Amino acid sequence: MRKVFFATGNPHKLKEAKRVLSKYGITVEQLTVKRVEVQSESLEEIARFSLEHVMREVHLDGVVLVEDAGLFIEALNGFPGPYSSYVFSKIGNEGILKLMDGVENRRAKFESVVAAVNQSRIVTFRGEVLGVIAHEAKGGKGFGFDPIFIPYEGDGRTFGELEVEEKNALSHRARALRKLAEWLTGSSKII
Amino acid sequence: MRKVFFATGNPHKLKEAKRVLSKYGITVEQLTVKRVEVQSESLEEIARFSLEHVMREVHLDGVVLVEDAGLFIEALNGFPGPYSSYVFSKIGNEGILKLMDGVENRRAKFESVVAAVNQSRIVTFRGEVLGVIAHEAKGGKGFGFDPIFIPYEGDGRTFGELEVEEKNALSHRARALRKLAEWLTGSSKII
Repeated sequence: MRKVFFATGNPHKLKEAKRVLSKYGITVEQLTVKRVEVQSESLEEIARFSLEHVMREVHLDGVVLVEDAGLFIEALNGFPGPYSSYVFSKIGNEGILKLMDGVENRRAKFESVVAAVNQSRIVTFRGEVLGVIAHEAKGGKGFGFDPIFIPYEGDGRTFGELEVEEKNALSHRARALRKLAEWLTGSSKII
Repeated sequence: MRKVFFATGNPHKLKEAKRVLSKYGITVEQLTVKRVEVQSESLEEIARFSLEHVMREVHLDGVVLVEDAGLFIEALNGFPGPYSSYVFSKIGNEGILKLMDGVENRRAKFESVVAAVNQSRIVTFRGEVLGVIAHEAKGGKGFGFDPIFIPYEGDGRTFGELEVEEKNALSHRARALRKLAEWLTGSSKII
């Protein structure tokens, strides 16, 4: 049974990661450490920087990972992007819906980057999911902008209307985590 | 004649700083170095972190300073705040005006924090200016959100309609810089 330490303060992310990784025989332990995130438009840069900071703070024998994600809306030049969590805390789903009022092009994507360190080597894994911004918020599941994002590959429901297992079948984070799991269990090579 | 090194890539900020500090006999030299900014809601933390990074990159005999600023809109819970420059690049003045459409409380403030290091001691200086968000963007001077900010102490024009000297009479940045100048020239004590 492998174990990874996930540095996150977000219980939803922790739950999603536990579900995804358990299928590979990997257990997840939460690591509560103050995260330092750099201002950047690159999720990879943010995740790497954050992981390097975590590594200076804690010394663990095992795999440590951080994850950074963002919602990128095409008509808003990629806003809110890497600052999604901050923007959500300030203007919420209503703010984004207001910015998108009357906007025809509603294409958006969620991106996730997982950075993991094993024996001082850092690797990153990326996942994404394409979809559209809904015209109203729906669903009380998930977190953040989930209630206004409708994935193309779904059945028309928003992420906020999906159970964890359903969201994990499609989500950016689950995709990045599966790449991590395959790397850890040796079932795929890093590209 | 004293000299300070200002780590900024923003020509408008440089121009404002030169004007303010010249009145104290201080010259300003631009320092072009990649700045690293941490994600935080505290301008002080961002400025300090950024300055510490600059200090690791360059070794100069003299005072080095960085500045960080943000527009904090009351009805938007302080958005865009420390992420003003990113938010401006993505949704611009139009985005903020759209978010403020129909919002009665238009109170906002600009804040600036200047962090300076002299002989490895870091000090910070804060300046702010109170005002309201205009109903439309006006003026092609200044930069960023200047065309939608009307300071209370002005004559009803936006920052975007003011000449550098006029803006410096009122602005958050000029206020922080004057505190720095007074500290450097010994004409005041740090509180």
